[in-house]
Amino acid sequence: MNFASDNVYGIHPRILAAISEANSGTTPSYASDDYSKRAEEALCEVFEKPVRAFLVTTGTAANGLALSAIAPPYGAVICHAEAHISCDECNSPEHFTGGAKIIGLRGAGGKITPAAIEKTLNGFIRGEHDPKPAAVSLTNATELGTLYSPAEISAISALIKPRGMKLHIDGARFANAVAGLGVSPAEATWKSGVDVMSFGATKNGAMLLEAVIFFDTELAEDFAYRRMRAGQLVSKSRYLGAQMLAYLKDGLWLENARRANALAQRLAKGLLSSNSLRIPHPVQANEVFTVMPRRLYDELQGAGVRFFDWMPDGLGLDGIKEDEILARFVLSFATPEEDVDRFVDLMRLKRVA
Amino acid sequence: MNFASDNVYGIHPRILAAISEANSGTTPSYASDDYSKRAEEALCEVFEKPVRAFLVTTGTAANGLALSAIAPPYGAVICHAEAHISCDECNSPEHFTGGAKIIGLRGAGGKITPAAIEKTLNGFIRGEHDPKPAAVSLTNATELGTLYSPAEISAISALIKPRGMKLHIDGARFANAVAGLGVSPAEATWKSGVDVMSFGATKNGAMLLEAVIFFDTELAEDFAYRRMRAGQLVSKSRYLGAQMLAYLKDGLWLENARRANALAQRLAKGLLSSNSLRIPHPVQANEVFTVMPRRLYDELQGAGVRFFDWMPDGLGLDGIKEDEILARFVLSFATPEEDVDRFVDLMRLKRVA
Amino acid sequence: MNFASDNVYGIHPRILAAISEANSGTTPSYASDDYSKRAEEALCEVFEKPVRAFLVTTGTAANGLALSAIAPPYGAVICHAEAHISCDECNSPEHFTGGAKIIGLRGAGGKITPAAIEKTLNGFIRGEHDPKPAAVSLTNATELGTLYSPAEISAISALIKPRGMKLHIDGARFANAVAGLGVSPAEATWKSGVDVMSFGATKNGAMLLEAVIFFDTELAEDFAYRRMRAGQLVSKSRYLGAQMLAYLKDGLWLENARRANALAQRLAKGLLSSNSLRIPHPVQANEVFTVMPRRLYDELQGAGVRFFDWMPDGLGLDGIKEDEILARFVLSFATPEEDVDRFVDLMRLKRVA
Amino acid sequence: MNFASDNVYGIHPRILAAISEANSGTTPSYASDDYSKRAEEALCEVFEKPVRAFLVTTGTAANGLALSAIAPPYGAVICHAEAHISCDECNSPEHFTGGAKIIGLRGAGGKITPAAIEKTLNGFIRGEHDPKPAAVSLTNATELGTLYSPAEISAISALIKPRGMKLHIDGARFANAVAGLGVSPAEATWKSGVDVMSFGATKNGAMLLEAVIFFDTELAEDFAYRRMRAGQLVSKSRYLGAQMLAYLKDGLWLENARRANALAQRLAKGLLSSNSLRIPHPVQANEVFTVMPRRLYDELQGAGVRFFDWMPDGLGLDGIKEDEILARFVLSFATPEEDVDRFVDLMRLKRVA
Repeated sequence: MNFASDNVYGIHPRILAAISEANSGTTPSYASDDYSKRAEEALCEVFEKPVRAFLVTTGTAANGLALSAIAPPYGAVICHAEAHISCDECNSPEHFTGGAKIIGLRGAGGKITPAAIEKTLNGFIRGEHDPKPAAVSLTNATELGTLYSPAEISAISALIKPRGMKLHIDGARFANAVAGLGVSPAEATWKSGVDVMSFGATKNGAMLLEAVIFFDTELAEDFAYRRMRAGQLVSKSRYLGAQMLAYLKDGLWLENARRANALAQRLAKGLLSSNSLRIPHPVQANEVFTVMPRRLYDELQGAGVRFFDWMPDGLGLDGIKEDEILARFVLSFATPEEDVDRFVDLMRLKRVA
Repeated sequence: MNFASDNVYGIHPRILAAISEANSGTTPSYASDDYSKRAEEALCEVFEKPVRAFLVTTGTAANGLALSAIAPPYGAVICHAEAHISCDECNSPEHFTGGAKIIGLRGAGGKITPAAIEKTLNGFIRGEHDPKPAAVSLTNATELGTLYSPAEISAISALIKPRGMKLHIDGARFANAVAGLGVSPAEATWKSGVDVMSFGATKNGAMLLEAVIFFDTELAEDFAYRRMRAGQLVSKSRYLGAQMLAYLKDGLWLENARRANALAQRLAKGLLSSNSLRIPHPVQANEVFTVMPRRLYDELQGAGVRFFDWMPDGLGLDGIKEDEILARFVLSFATPEEDVDRFVDLMRLKRVA
Repeated sequence: MNFASDNVYGIHPRILAAISEANSGTTPSYASDDYSKRAEEALCEVFEKPVRAFLVTTGTAANGLALSAIAPPYGAVICHAEAHISCDECNSPEHFTGGAKIIGLRGAGGKITPAAIEKTLNGFIRGEHDPKPAAVSLTNATELGTLYSPAEISAISALIKPRGMKLHIDGARFANAVAGLGVSPAEATWKSGVDVMSFGATKNGAMLLEAVIFFDTELAEDFAYRRMRAGQLVSKSRYLGAQMLAYLKDGLWLENARRANALAQRLAKGLLSSNSLRIPHPVQANEVFTVMPRRLYDELQGAGVRFFDWMPDGLGLDGIKEDEILARFVLSFATPEEDVDRFVDLMRLKRVA
Repeated sequence: MNFASDNVYGIHPRILAAISEANSGTTPSYASDDYSKRAEEALCEVFEKPVRAFLVTTGTAANGLALSAIAPPYGAVICHAEAHISCDECNSPEHFTGGAKIIGLRGAGGKITPAAIEKTLNGFIRGEHDPKPAAVSLTNATELGTLYSPAEISAISALIKPRGMKLHIDGARFANAVAGLGVSPAEATWKSGVDVMSFGATKNGAMLLEAVIFFDTELAEDFAYRRMRAGQLVSKSRYLGAQMLAYLKDGLWLENARRANALAQRLAKGLLSSNSLRIPHPVQANEVFTVMPRRLYDELQGAGVRFFDWMPDGLGLDGIKEDEILARFVLSFATPEEDVDRFVDLMRLKRVA
């Protein structure tokens, strides 16, 4: 039973097959091959817009590169305090942007509000003594498995665009967001004011594949230089292109996400029915967070259940006691359904008094 | 007939099979999986030394990261003017090192000499008005398909080590160098004074895989941070580890390189026997450079032969006329032997008057 | 009546005279002149230790350069949330360090505690997914006009040194700290575990002059390169050296600081006797902070009294109401005593009901 | 007799007096004072255009900051191989730009030609594998004491502007250029296509004062952030403003430059009449370069004559023998006329056989 992360599982068979199929003959390298070109076209179709899309190998690189196109070295990027760019990427955003400041705000359920952003922006009254407010980065689905709706994204866009700021989505779990929201990819992004997105595929079935997608294509003007300079232009680029084509073909990406999301609902429902654990915020994507006694965490790890103790600092959570933890369970397209059921059964036995 | 680069070919079947075989079950992510650990152990065996090895996805990243561990932002790295780090990686070395200066020296056959390095170092007489000489980076095999012998590497090491400088090898084609030199990997590296190497696998049969290998393991102390910060720590790291294990297993890496090198010899011999083209420096690895009339280049491209016009600036080549070019032919582990023979036959017909 | 900052006043006459006196004949440039050398010697005497001292032109540069010598690009620097390096220098620390993360902690009176630092360090449990804890930076005197005693500094040093971290002091108002503490410069720095300090002179009587002082002189090894690279090696360096010599001669620096500190005490005493304003933390250096109604702030500005509304966010201050502000009054060596008295008289009239 | 550099001399008395005069009362800090504002206005008058001007403390900072506004981290800046930004500033341009590549071209007399620039640009045919050509930086007066005429500057501008590149002037000795050319400051800059300039005052009579002047004022949009982030926004900014006002007042800057240039002519004429030394290129500003036997250099240094052996590498100079050096003599506004005459007399005695 492994709920540690969606990246502990492997590659979806159709994506693995696509890699094998791409393995014949010669192709141009460095993203000038047909696979890469067709991948960009496929993303244009998915987003119903002529986007510019650049394939890279990790989510950290995708985020850093995307931010570098919208935040100058003297700029500030506002995000949630628990955002990956704020606390999970060493100093990578600083590296890619040349030193921009990442300002993490607290907010319930892993989400930041227009009010919190506005309050922060209103504090920037001293010109160059502060960094220049450059961008807001939202994670969708969030690190807490919650979702920003198009209306929520639009409200933030409406706040920041008149100030000349740009809007980025860290979409490491974007498929889960689209599947959970039940809206189109376009509605969840550019129709709501998003300028650029890190579009994740790795967690949801690919091997190592993310795309930086520009909805505001002018921002992409020099992006090929940025990708090259960051060591993210791969020579045998056909294998990234082929993965992306398979990921999008026949909606595999959403199919995978729907399955993972459904498993999360199944897990949450099972845990609630066992009446033993608090689930402090809505389960909207492929993650379930529960508050549990620390000794239960230790017991479960001992029983071979893999999941993380997720530090609550910055989450704005009330009511977690000293001897409790916030436990994170991540469901993947590849998580066996029986693992969920076995875990729920196990928890029934462990029922908290 | 494609001699454009070794990266226009695909993945070796045994490496592809290893990727498939790794695709089952769950594994820890971010390089804490067994595949990654065993890959490091396998590299220790290959180099007969407890090295530290970090897998990354591109040669540009490997070079930049390796240099960042040995050259401070105020430092200088000396290399050949035609080195990949000098002229093929946008400003990537500057990006990874935080602004170190890459100083490209001219030298025959793509190689720099101790004398040229010493002359450069002797010009650094003004303290902080110059950058601090930090490292020398040698490409082996070179961009011109020639080789540095252990004796040549040792001579450079002996020159720079007393000055506190470090020695890096860009080994994008290291397998071809070892195969061509007929020495052990240890002799071509740490036994000759090399501190850190970019060990390439992509060009020689992997999908996207390079390793930064520290022979001076103290230099690796903080390297995990550097790799993470650069967006080069992949989450599903098992697929890099599995590639490396297959690449090294039963000497596949050297087998591939020997085949490519042999094809280069076959091509060179064929061209010389056709008596039509000059080959200005020794063919020692998997590349053949010839001087040819520009009109012949155009004709051959028209006939579907893919290869590059390699700009001679910085190569120290004499005797290339205005209407001539320096043509590069790269042979891969996967280049069909008949392509070489067909091309030689074609050239016989095109015999230069 | 100008209490806006200590930098709204000019140069002390003895320092101005020293500039004039230095203006004859020729001298070597770029810090190889006698003035620069003697300035370093004078600092060794002041600190009773063979320190390395590098003169620069601004406090922001001094801080950034000092941090760059102790924090790598993948490192973290812990400081108070109100520290100059955290919120008053645009992204300058990130610029100089190549992207280190500045982590600002809250703490009463502008000071951080060993407990708060330890709690933060204990959160760094994920290796390279977090930045590497590299340094703590304390501001002494703090942004709130309070002081760290040698005992407090030593306690922080004792906490971080076993973890391989370094200790920096932002001493933009170090003279005021030494004067206020009544200890020797040595006791306030290296005897308490400080490795490197930004030693300010500008606010306390110089024109534009700060020094980066290394107590751990090994850290200074390459610092000349860093200063040059940052554009902080001035050609006519004699004028920096001459300023520093005059600043230190006959204890002018402490004489100035004592006067400013005494004026702060006079102001605080006057305000308290007027019984109208709260002074939320001890006045220990040359700054007085009071809580006042916002309308009073407006009235006083209208009456020509210059001081700042200091945003309380991050200060850990309780009890500031919506219609109140935290007002900062800075006293300088050059503030006329009668200005203090006039302001106290004015406040008596403005007595808050 | 000190001809080592123009920065071995002190401050012009009128500038020193201006500093003293500015030393009374309180002023706003951080460039919001009247002196700073009036300095910008005075520069608008000098250049007959509403420019944006930012005062900084060193020429290295001025260059780095100016380049950072026109060259992205993935860009290339083309200059002469002997340019200060190429070989006298450690890795400062890389630091300020975030890693742009400085490409130094050879050229006679310290000048680069449109042909050489065009040849370089024509080599940039591989997209993001090369850096993006961003700017050309010309030094006027050059490091060799020669001058670019408005016609020459315009020709370079005409070449690069259609390619989207910007034109920078390193004007550390701009006053000497204007004095030598006999044209207006406007003609030597924006009327010839210059976008931004480092305008030097330190070498020509100020204490530590340079300005970054934007003729294309849109480029200045975020420059205040850049200056702050670089630690170049000084708090007691009145002293920079006051220096600049005095430097420009009544044409002091050109008066000083004319005197220095005239002394250079006097020295050159004297040396030529002594018939002993070769002067390999025209003396057009305040520097005289001569070819002399190395033993003469040693003798003169022994006799107390200060000047530099200027390494000829990169200068495109022919005919310097193994036992000869290229000696640089710099004349300042403050060089005593009798020193020139004494030196000429001395050289008559030293007449080379």
